[in-house]
Amino acid sequence: MRKSIAIDMDGVIADEETQLLTWYERHYGLKIHPHELIGRTEYDVVPELGAYDKFSATPGYFRTTPVMPGAVEAVKKLSEDFDIYIVSAAMQYPLSLSQKLEWLGEHFPFISWRNIIFCGDKSIIGTDYMIDDHIKNLDNFKGKTVMFNAFHNVNHHHHQRVNNWDEVLELMKKEI
Amino acid sequence: MRKSIAIDMDGVIADEETQLLTWYERHYGLKIHPHELIGRTEYDVVPELGAYDKFSATPGYFRTTPVMPGAVEAVKKLSEDFDIYIVSAAMQYPLSLSQKLEWLGEHFPFISWRNIIFCGDKSIIGTDYMIDDHIKNLDNFKGKTVMFNAFHNVNHHHHQRVNNWDEVLELMKKEI
Repeated sequence: MRKSIAIDMDGVIADEETQLLTWYERHYGLKIHPHELIGRTEYDVVPELGAYDKFSATPGYFRTTPVMPGAVEAVKKLSEDFDIYIVSAAMQYPLSLSQKLEWLGEHFPFISWRNIIFCGDKSIIGTDYMIDDHIKNLDNFKGKTVMFNAFHNVNHHHHQRVNNWDEVLELMKKEI
Repeated sequence: MRKSIAIDMDGVIADEETQLLTWYERHYGLKIHPHELIGRTEYDVVPELGAYDKFSATPGYFRTTPVMPGAVEAVKKLSEDFDIYIVSAAMQYPLSLSQKLEWLGEHFPFISWRNIIFCGDKSIIGTDYMIDDHIKNLDNFKGKTVMFNAFHNVNHHHHQRVNNWDEVLELMKKEI
């Protein structure tokens, strides 16, 4: 029986870091170097309180996020051997729902609507694997976890870390 | 540990049957009696091909669906003893996403965004129970199933049937 993988959007197939840095510069004139993000969360990257919430509530923020390098090819490759589900905690930002669906339609047209899940809490997701960048999602998951490297998770070491999509493919090859 | 229940929207907490009959009359001038629906699906209720797809693609169809009698009180009562997740196969109708979220906000404001899931295929939902009217969702579910009576499921008898929300409460009392 084919095993199933829940794959997160922001920070995993969507390059949230690049989008954040682009929007900080555009909206606050702040040129932040990626290394300045290390160990911080989306919420405390810049001194402006609520910047991330403001971006999330701005039409287009999620729609224009760049694709994570290598994600399209890797997800396509994985779907040969696994059932792939895109699972995004989109419910916190109602405005993101249609943007995220459109974004997936543009960049991942091979993912069926049957395999897309927008949720809040991910603890009820019952796939065999979860690839996610957020500890809160991975910690409550019952299957095997894969932590996609992100600025906010560098100090956590209790999940299998992968640094890019090549490493995901390498790791999942052993799980087929 | 509290057990979890996935509760469907259309046909379970949202009175899809009443909404369908109202829209058939409004759009086609067809006055259909509920007993004429028995044993049919949403897709073959009236001779007009694609009527349900047309309604689903019309702004307001999902937003104006009446609440299933007794649903609000029963879900509130259940949430005292169970973790409640609203799980809707909304992804097939992209236009329904924001409508369904608004509908829940109006009628079920006590349900947190953390506990709302919009998906396609429900087979990856890992709750302990699922209350749903569709066989395709119940058949692929790994936990205990509860089939909410609906015109399209009257000929299926392999899931525990409940006819209304009072019967759900009666049944779930034994599962606490």
